[in-house]
Amino acid sequence: MKHYSLEEIQGWSRFYRANFVNSLSGFKPVSLIGTTHKSGEFNLAIFSNIVHLGADPTLIGFINRPREAAPHTLANIEQNLFYTINHISPEYIDKAHQTSAKYPEGVSEFEMVGLTPEIKIDFKAPFVKESMVQYAMELVEVVSIKHNNTFLVVGKMIHAFVEPSYVGEDGFIDLVKAQSVVSLGLDGYGEATALQRFSYAKPDQPLTELGF
Amino acid sequence: MKHYSLEEIQGWSRFYRANFVNSLSGFKPVSLIGTTHKSGEFNLAIFSNIVHLGADPTLIGFINRPREAAPHTLANIEQNLFYTINHISPEYIDKAHQTSAKYPEGVSEFEMVGLTPEIKIDFKAPFVKESMVQYAMELVEVVSIKHNNTFLVVGKMIHAFVEPSYVGEDGFIDLVKAQSVVSLGLDGYGEATALQRFSYAKPDQPLTELGF
Repeated sequence: MKHYSLEEIQGWSRFYRANFVNSLSGFKPVSLIGTTHKSGEFNLAIFSNIVHLGADPTLIGFINRPREAAPHTLANIEQNLFYTINHISPEYIDKAHQTSAKYPEGVSEFEMVGLTPEIKIDFKAPFVKESMVQYAMELVEVVSIKHNNTFLVVGKMIHAFVEPSYVGEDGFIDLVKAQSVVSLGLDGYGEATALQRFSYAKPDQPLTELGF
Repeated sequence: MKHYSLEEIQGWSRFYRANFVNSLSGFKPVSLIGTTHKSGEFNLAIFSNIVHLGADPTLIGFINRPREAAPHTLANIEQNLFYTINHISPEYIDKAHQTSAKYPEGVSEFEMVGLTPEIKIDFKAPFVKESMVQYAMELVEVVSIKHNNTFLVVGKMIHAFVEPSYVGEDGFIDLVKAQSVVSLGLDGYGEATALQRFSYAKPDQPLTELGF
């Protein structure tokens, strides 16, 4: 293995460094976030740094870049309080990636890239109709990360839409079957294959393989 | 698709709900975090909620559960300030998962599960020798998420160890080639296959496929 020091990394071009550091943190749970602008226009943007924060309450967070770099989704969420998160399938990774283009405020990325907004259960933000795993969020807290002006946007999951055949007897959702894609770096997309599930780990007990 | 409401989800058993909500956020960039206890003993623990925060400075964060649930890694980082993050390969996902068992403080999970601590470049925390992508971190900030007592631990990446054949001409690291695994839910592991890379998206320009 080669040792890349911070000194070397800081000497790279901005683009090379961004590709390297963005890949280094691993494959990411990339998803499309749907919001509604105060004018009523829908907004759709791709986000890849998404974290599970807890199951009770059902908290999920995502990282939003500095406001000047990525203003629309965060502003809509702060105003409207409700948003959707939608997994991406392999057939439309190009459309999902295209939502990262800097369209003017008030322009619907749904229309621009050719994905379909789906309004249901009177929810105040659009789901992505093409998505096989969708969930609805209510804003809880916007946490500032002072060091580089990014934000951890924390929300409570209040509705989920999943094909029941993906959901196992113990609540596990088989996202391999759902074909939810992962992202890598700034612009790479991949698909996952199943390896194994294991029993809850205890110090003096061998693991059991559960199968996927 | 079935609609799962929050009311229904809250009525589930703790275990079923944890599996469901943990899977819902998508595949995760699971890694092993290596730290050193003040006694000098090494600690190793598996973490799956890892986020890229920025490439300049090179900030990467991870979510730590409440202190009472997951005390050792965070305490060691706060004391020592340095830690390592190591990708996991398919051959030892069982050993990686086993690090989640609640071993007593001061016990080395390296020894317990059979992974090899690697000390190099005088770094004050152990790398996982079996890992094909390793990076070294310096603590920047521990951000509290008040709503459920979890933490976003923000660090600066100061060294990386990667096989140069995985690193593309533009800095992109091919983690499919590196066979870095992803996790799903509390106990599932998968491997990724490459789909596509795309050019930087602009409003009035079609995407170019870059290949992986």
